[in-house]
Parts: sequence; C-alpha cells; structure tokens
Amino acid sequence: MTNKKQMKLSAYLVGTGMHAASWRLPDALPGASIDIDYYVRLARTAERGAFDFVFLADSLAINEQSHPNILNRFEPITLIAALSVATSRIGLVATASTSYIEPFNLARLLLSADRISKGRAGWNIVTTRDLSGNTARNFGAEKHFELEHRYQRATEFVDAVLGLWDSWEDDAFLYDKASGKLFDPSKLHRIHHRGEFFAVEGPLNIARSPQGYPLLVQAGNSEAGQRFAARFAEVVFAIKYNYEDARAYYADFKAKAAAAGRNPDDVYILQGISPVIGATEEEAVAKRRTLESLLGESEILGFLADYFKEIDFSPFTTETTAREAGLDMLEAANPDYRKHKPVIARENPTLREIYSLIIGSFSGDHLVGTPEKIADTLELWFRGGAADGFMLMAPALPEGLDDFVRHVVPLLQARGLFRQEYAADTLRGHIGLQAPPNRYAASRRAESPAT
Amino acid sequence: MTNKKQMKLSAYLVGTGMHAASWRLPDALPGASIDIDYYVRLARTAERGAFDFVFLADSLAINEQSHPNILNRFEPITLIAALSVATSRIGLVATASTSYIEPFNLARLLLSADRISKGRAGWNIVTTRDLSGNTARNFGAEKHFELEHRYQRATEFVDAVLGLWDSWEDDAFLYDKASGKLFDPSKLHRIHHRGEFFAVEGPLNIARSPQGYPLLVQAGNSEAGQRFAARFAEVVFAIKYNYEDARAYYADFKAKAAAAGRNPDDVYILQGISPVIGATEEEAVAKRRTLESLLGESEILGFLADYFKEIDFSPFTTETTAREAGLDMLEAANPDYRKHKPVIARENPTLREIYSLIIGSFSGDHLVGTPEKIADTLELWFRGGAADGFMLMAPALPEGLDDFVRHVVPLLQARGLFRQEYAADTLRGHIGLQAPPNRYAASRRAESPAT
Repeated sequence: MTNKKQMKLSAYLVGTGMHAASWRLPDALPGASIDIDYYVRLARTAERGAFDFVFLADSLAINEQSHPNILNRFEPITLIAALSVATSRIGLVATASTSYIEPFNLARLLLSADRISKGRAGWNIVTTRDLSGNTARNFGAEKHFELEHRYQRATEFVDAVLGLWDSWEDDAFLYDKASGKLFDPSKLHRIHHRGEFFAVEGPLNIARSPQGYPLLVQAGNSEAGQRFAARFAEVVFAIKYNYEDARAYYADFKAKAAAAGRNPDDVYILQGISPVIGATEEEAVAKRRTLESLLGESEILGFLADYFKEIDFSPFTTETTAREAGLDMLEAANPDYRKHKPVIARENPTLREIYSLIIGSFSGDHLVGTPEKIADTLELWFRGGAADGFMLMAPALPEGLDDFVRHVVPLLQARGLFRQEYAADTLRGHIGLQAPPNRYAASRRAESPAT
Repeated sequence: MTNKKQMKLSAYLVGTGMHAASWRLPDALPGASIDIDYYVRLARTAERGAFDFVFLADSLAINEQSHPNILNRFEPITLIAALSVATSRIGLVATASTSYIEPFNLARLLLSADRISKGRAGWNIVTTRDLSGNTARNFGAEKHFELEHRYQRATEFVDAVLGLWDSWEDDAFLYDKASGKLFDPSKLHRIHHRGEFFAVEGPLNIARSPQGYPLLVQAGNSEAGQRFAARFAEVVFAIKYNYEDARAYYADFKAKAAAAGRNPDDVYILQGISPVIGATEEEAVAKRRTLESLLGESEILGFLADYFKEIDFSPFTTETTAREAGLDMLEAANPDYRKHKPVIARENPTLREIYSLIIGSFSGDHLVGTPEKIADTLELWFRGGAADGFMLMAPALPEGLDDFVRHVVPLLQARGLFRQEYAADTLRGHIGLQAPPNRYAASRRAESPAT
C-alpha cells in the first residue's frame, strides 16, 4: 500500500481546546494554554497515535474579546523547539506571519527549529487574520495590510526565505581537520534578493536540515490565498462543514495546483474537523450540549460586536439568525468575514453558530457520535475525494485528542486508512515527500555533463 | 553565608569552543555547532556543576572569514527553548539584537522561552557587533547603524519590551469556571508606546513568568554601551586580560550603576575567562601550544584583512606586532575595534594575539595551568573586587567545560566560593535577585491606602 493511499492526521493544539467555553469544563486545566508540561503531554499523545504532526496556530494581537486560549500562550516557534526535545518522531508545525517580521529573522528561527527537531518542523505560512482589529498597532502601523497586498508581500517573502534556506549546499562542510579546510566556499551562496518589499543579501548562518527545510503549510481561503497556496504549499488546511463543500474545494484546489505547474498529488489537503466523541450517539450529543451551555450570551455577542464593528448587536440574542441580523448581506469591514460569508448566506445559521464558525470550533452532526461514526465520516471524506487527511481541532483538550487516539485511530488503522507506526524520521518523510533539492546543487548538476 | 558572597558562574556554549582552531582537535565533533544532542550534553554538564546559566552568543551575518563555530549554528532563542526541556534548574541566556527586529516580536519570543523554562531565561541585549561588515544588507539597509544611534534605539526598544512584559498583572487570570470569569480586564494593560523609533500598542499575548521576565544581561564596552548597561543590566559580561584592568573596570562600572540610581550590589559583573586546564602547568602550556599551532596563517591574516579593510596584510606574518602593522595608531573603520584599541596600543601584541583578542579566545598566563592555579586566579579576582563571577569561554569544548566542572568547581566549592547545589528554581533566584514587580500592580499598591 503506497503512502498516498493512507490519510494524514494532524492535531491542532490550543490550550483547553477549540471551543471557547472549553476552559470551563470540570476537568479543564487552568493555565493550560501556557503550561509546557501540558503541551508536552499533548504532543506525546499525538505521537503515540502516529500523527503526522501537531499544529500550533498564532495571532499577533489580542483584545478583551479574544478566544480564551489565545490571550496568554506560547509563541509557536519557541514552542516547537521545546517540543522537539520532548518527542522523537512527530512533525511540529508552527504558524508564523509574513506581515510583521524580516525574512532573514524568520528564515533563521524556522530553520533553527527544523535543525533542533532533526527535520521535523513545518511552517504554516499566514499573512495574519486581524480578528482583533489591532494587529498593525503592535508594529508601528495604524492599519493592517489589505489582503491582496499581504499576499504579494508574502510571495516575495517566501521566495526570499527559500533562497536563504539554500545558502549552504548539503555537502558544503568538509571538516577536514588535517588540511584545516572546514568548508568549500564555492558551496556557500548569497541570494542578493532585491524585490519590491525586501532586500536580503545572505548568506544565512544556518544550513539545511535532514528534510531540506521546514514543510510548507498554508490555509488560504481567499482567491489570493489559494493562488499563493497553489504555488507554495505542500500541505493545505481548510475547514468545510459538509461533504459537498469539502469535495468541491478539494477538486478546485487540486486543479489550481496543477494549473500552477505542480503535481496535484504532491499537495495534501487536510480538512479541519472538530469531532465530539461519545460511547453512544446520545453521550456525544450531550457533551456538545454541555459545551454550548457553558458559552455565555455576553461572550458571544461581545465577540461578534468586536468582529463586526458596523453592527449593533444589543437588540439580538445568540439565537438570532444571520438574516435577522443582516449578516447575509453585509459588506463587512473585517476582511476575515469574506471566507465565512458564502456559507452563512446559504445556511442562515444562528449567531451562536456563526461564532463557532469564525472561531473554528463548529462540530457538524456528521462529527458528533461514536468512534465508528467519526471513522465512517473520515473514511467517506477520504475515499470520496474530499480530503487527503484531517486536522483534529478538538473542541476540548486533552480529552478530544485522548479519545481520538484511543478510539478512532485504531479503527482507521484496522481499515488500512492510517499507518500503524512511523516509517520515516522527518516530517516530509511522514507526509511522503522528498527533501527538496538545494537550488545551487541542482543547477550545478544540470550544468555538468553526465559522467 | 549570603548569596552575595559566592561567585556566579556561566558557561559560554559555542560549538567546539571559543578557539577558532578548536574544531581541528582530534576529539572535536564535526558539526558540533549545529548538533542539538551535543548542546544538551553541554547544558547538562553545566547544570551538574550548578552553574548559574549557560550563555548563547549570536550574530546576524557571516562571511567566508567568520569564526568556524558561527558559520552554521542555532538561533539562540529557539535553542534555549529546546534546552529548557532537557534541563531543570540551570539558567539559559540567549543573545538577541535590538537593531533588526520589532520589539513586539522579540518581547514575545523571549517571554515565551522564559515561560517554557519556567523562569530560567535571560536576554543578553546586544545592538550587534558587525564583525562581518554585511549585517545591514541582510535587513534591507546598506550600512549598519552607528554606535550612538544603536544605543539610543536599544534604550527605547528595551523600554517598550519591558512595558509589553507587564501587559498582564500576575493575578489577572481568575479561571472562575462557575461564573465564567476568565480574567479581570482591569489587569490587562496596553503600553501605548509612541517613541522616536517605535510605536507599539500592546497588550502582549503572553503573561509574565515565575521570575517576572527574562534576566537582563549586557556586555557593552563603549561609553554608550556602559551607560545603557548601567541603566538596564542585571548581569554585565566583560573581558579583561589582567587583574588591574578587571579591577578598574569593576570599580568604574559599579560607580556608573550607582550614578544611574541603581544599587551597585544588584548588578553582577562577570569576567570572561578562557582557561586552559592541565594536570600540570606543563600539560596546560602544551595544550595551548597545540591549539595555537592548529590555527593557520591564512585564516588569521584573512580574518584581520576582512576586519581592518583599510590595511594591506600581505606583507605581514602572524608574528608581526601591532606597532609594526600600524594598528596602535589606526582609526579603524570597524567600530568593534574601539574596545580593543587601548589594550593593543599598550601591550603591543602580535597579530596572532590580536586575532585571539578580537575573537574572544585569548588565554592569559594566569589562566593556563592546573585546576588549583585557575581556582587561585578566580579567587583573587573575586575577593579582590575584579569580578562577581565568571563567564567560562572554554577554548575547546566539551573538554574545557568538562574539566572545569570536574576539577575547578569542587575547589571553588571547598573554598566556600561557589554553591554546592541550586537553592532556587529561577535564574533570578540563582543570581540572588527578586522578580521585578509588575509596574501596574506596583502603582496600584502605591495608590491604595494601607489597610
């Protein structure tokens, strides 16, 4: 059975879970979002489940309405560096934005984490969703970059970073103690990047890792984001709330990757899922109900009022529908809303459901139930061309991950849908990708005659 | 015996050691500078020796003449995050420059590492020595900032970072599951920083650590650097090559700290030392000779030609003296030279010795010999008012650290000069400093009447 026939699994780690009320559950650990021992346990659980990688999201600003699990949390690259030492096989993907840091700094931080983990790091490339509306002001600007501008900048940024990552060819270091020749200077390169947004000379002061460089992950939903992902991403992360939408997205994105000159089989699409697992269907439904009941009216309406600054939410309740609130027709000033608007206009959810959609913790009925039901859904989506794998965005942690590893993973393994154990040592190895060749070594090989 | 009566010890970790030829020693590990298992071993050795902290230097550019151990190395903040998980008590100090990163990003990275290590991180604040002459070009500029400008910028940078680190008061998080009150919004703060160089709004999305925030370390040698250190630094790191210079520096710096309104006892001065340890004096001298013999003429002269671009070194050998080369009178374009010029003008060293001075791997005769001799020197410097402690810049690693921990530390302990074991859990605790109060909590306490 080829690697391509098995699904990929990733675990989204975020404090007590994706659900904004998860911190109020009886077993939720106070301070989970900033507890390194807790994150080590989560990562080891995912590794025990032979997951391809754990995933750390990020944001560059908070305000009083932010999700409880992002108010106080680790910076993702330092976190994956720490998790590297506490794990041995699992991939570690950190989110980092291209919008507010120099390419040289980010190239170094990420490749350093990749070396520390011996080739298990990934970079989730974002241009920053400005949910709080105050990101720019943390970096000396008044207004966040517009979407199109952000992706133009991101494209040049990633080009520069990829160039820096090739500064040293893989066989540049000789360590010839007898002659005193430490390295071959012809295998050390400067990129001399001079672009519209950045000038970066190089070389970088760190060399490539066992997997070449960090795996490139992306979650672009806008047209600009998908163009960007089609060009660069090796793993794409999306959230679709039903099978049809997921299949349509999958087919469309693979076509975009092909149009961008990529082999669509080399781009893996993971669908974000927030399953609620119970021993019986009733138990799972009750669990979801408990979580929902812990989410206060004022938190939901307060978040939405901050997100949609143009709407007065005081006349509404959490059961008000999108149409009643006028959200289906709104040209929202918040650019993040673009990706949610089509589904909201079509499905007319309540404000409570809209909140879950925006926060990314919506659990559709197809993902609430027994381990068998969850496995059935994942098998359908995987075999039916809706996903190459899944990003487990557990509503409540550690329970949602523990239960998935204990009860769902063995079912997927028994059905031949998921690996029994790791077969590789690097993240690209888990995914089934080769280390990308160094551009300078590749061009030298292309130039030299066959021997 | 109070904490203040015992010396502080730190280990400077850099690949195969400070000496530029250390990688050629028979036991030197190829790729040591980028081997995480090796760094874990070094950190654990220092922890076994009850060192206050390990220290990671940094630079933001390399060229073909750079020190072998900096060509390919970990970024320091990711490295200390990783070492946090592999150690439990020792402090972990990372160097980071204020010249080419946004305050919000660096504040986050450092406080994240401090939280990951449970209060064991330190920040060695640098404005970047541009040894390679091409730092600026990695960050979109042609010329590196001038010294005075760098420190003006650094002062504002550190002010902003310290403000961001106080975003959350220590008791801001309530985790009140019953009422749904996660935090007290009156204890979340924005700094609204608007300065000459930076605008930073806040709040930071991570809260203070068990030691408040990372220990502030500095190694400024210029007047501007010392002014800066006198204001901010809790630990100062200097390199003086004889007792008289070290005593003069110590007295002068303590006076500067007092003039800046600090208690001079709260600023700890560590002197950098590069001891060569042997079972006998002869063995140590032979070791130093072996190291020197492994350093090629061309490496030394190539480095110096790159460092002093205004001088033609082709007529010289490594035994040419400073006066013969005209270095004693030179107004060097390289600003790093300012700190070495007085000692070079006075002592007239050879080019080989000047190279060691600049690289920071010079081993004076008082530090070449038996463990007893090394301990005698350290005791003299410590009791004589030349140092509050030492930064071990071992010429060769791991040997130089292993030998020091095995043979010198027990002598210092037997003489009551150094702790037998750790008495605290945080880096500030090891040093003997309290966690700094949160500025907002402190001002609230000052305002409220005594009860």
